Amino acid sequence: MTSSSDQPQGADQPQGADPSWRLSLNQATIKRLSVEQAVQCCVQAGVRGIGLWRDSVDEAGAGRAARLVREAGLTVTSLCRGGFLTAATAAERTAAVADNRRAIEQAARLGAPVLALVCGGVPPGSRDLAGARAMVADGIAELVADAAAHRVCLAIEPLHPMFCADRSVVSTLGQALDLAERFSAEQVGVMVDAYHVWWDPDLEAAISRAGPRICGFQLSDWVLPLPADVLLGRGHIGTGCIDFRRLDAAVRAAHYRGWTEVEIFNEGVWAAPAAQTLRTVIDSYREHVASPGRGGEQG
Amino acid sequence: MTSSSDQPQGADQPQGADPSWRLSLNQATIKRLSVEQAVQCCVQAGVRGIGLWRDSVDEAGAGRAARLVREAGLTVTSLCRGGFLTAATAAERTAAVADNRRAIEQAARLGAPVLALVCGGVPPGSRDLAGARAMVADGIAELVADAAAHRVCLAIEPLHPMFCADRSVVSTLGQALDLAERFSAEQVGVMVDAYHVWWDPDLEAAISRAGPRICGFQLSDWVLPLPADVLLGRGHIGTGCIDFRRLDAAVRAAHYRGWTEVEIFNEGVWAAPAAQTLRTVIDSYREHVASPGRGGEQG
Repeated sequence: MTSSSDQPQGADQPQGADPSWRLSLNQATIKRLSVEQAVQCCVQAGVRGIGLWRDSVDEAGAGRAARLVREAGLTVTSLCRGGFLTAATAAERTAAVADNRRAIEQAARLGAPVLALVCGGVPPGSRDLAGARAMVADGIAELVADAAAHRVCLAIEPLHPMFCADRSVVSTLGQALDLAERFSAEQVGVMVDAYHVWWDPDLEAAISRAGPRICGFQLSDWVLPLPADVLLGRGHIGTGCIDFRRLDAAVRAAHYRGWTEVEIFNEGVWAAPAAQTLRTVIDSYREHVASPGRGGEQG
Repeated sequence: MTSSSDQPQGADQPQGADPSWRLSLNQATIKRLSVEQAVQCCVQAGVRGIGLWRDSVDEAGAGRAARLVREAGLTVTSLCRGGFLTAATAAERTAAVADNRRAIEQAARLGAPVLALVCGGVPPGSRDLAGARAMVADGIAELVADAAAHRVCLAIEPLHPMFCADRSVVSTLGQALDLAERFSAEQVGVMVDAYHVWWDPDLEAAISRAGPRICGFQLSDWVLPLPADVLLGRGHIGTGCIDFRRLDAAVRAAHYRGWTEVEIFNEGVWAAPAAQTLRTVIDSYREHVASPGRGGEQG
């Protein structure tokens, strides 16, 4: 069903009752706030979805976090994050799988349909990239039954290749799909994060191939210069060189109908007042992703 | 002809008369030295190939640089670098092509068989990645006749995707091949630089596909943490997580028989005495790439 609206939303209620405007705030964007504060921020700004992080959820208590979100009428769009399935020893890999089981349970408790997986890098001291990739595949295979039991989809998130050594040996969407396709689409999908995949010459083909495997869509911009800690170089939408409109169109053409999370790791953004950050998130989303008149958005 | 030797070379003459030991020093590794000093360093260390940089060659004068290298009995293995074919305006793109023509002429004058191309990033203020890639293709098309006339091969060098925005919209070897294959293999090939491509899940397939298109092979290691300027994060072979032996085997299996350049951008390496750097380059190459007993190296 198409429910596009060419009418801009009211400034204070950007989403209003329009189910097509599925913007979600990933909690990392306002990292210094508790779950309770983040939920309040979203409600005040009119953002109806939130992506949660496990450390914050643990701090609040999973039951309380779930209640806060539910009572505020928000949708939990993802839980970040599981993964880190590569390790030098079998004992560490077993511990990683156990930790991912807890993350799946937590996602279910929160009503998060998706657990994002940052798969893990090359174990320290190793040069065996193929071996690390095999560990990721093995780890996910151990988790699919839990994912099924809890009705949580594991979202393999390809990370930018600059994180291959230390955070994710899964670097492209095509590679993530090769892995995901070994399993049922209900249990294992892919997370498309603009910051990580924008550079990929095969991106549009991979998105088209992904189709229903896409279970999450995250946005932040590629801004130069990279900071000393390259984890924290992401910018607000529109401040860098990513063509979000084109990427969003590709994801929609692949029939993704879920939420779009804005997830920004940036010391400057974290230092800003949260309400201002939410305002920028909404305005930049409207300007660079889902501007009025674009049409074709579907709820 | 196979001329492998299982005998380790003498420590002071690592290559001796063995034509299989085709290690070349890229001048960037001892960046603060003039061409004359770099040539002396190579001779003293027994390294018989050198990759030159245009800025240093300009400083020495191309004629003098060519004479210094020739009189020392060294082989110029590449000239770095041309490219930067993306720009916001037609005038800038025309200027870039003209500059590449001068680079081709300089390569020919030096006897360098290869001009490495760092293709250029997304023009400032632009979000048109596809457009930038088209500029690269158009620029190379304008240069092939010059490359043919001067018998210089243009080596498209895929750069790590963390440089996509500002240095190279060509990010993978497969993408470089898609581009190179539009032209004759005599005029347009690819540079395989370990630092830029090691993470690529499709790397071995791309190397196999590349075959005779491989016209250069460069090594440096991926070392964490990345420094504040990610251009300068490369390490000596063996200090990071790249499996050079596997990569070298793949390149040899694709029938590459040219030189292997060690090219390290690193402030710490630049601060070290050049003779010590050469020693480390040779020792680490022997230990991690072409150790005795590996066999199969061909001159």
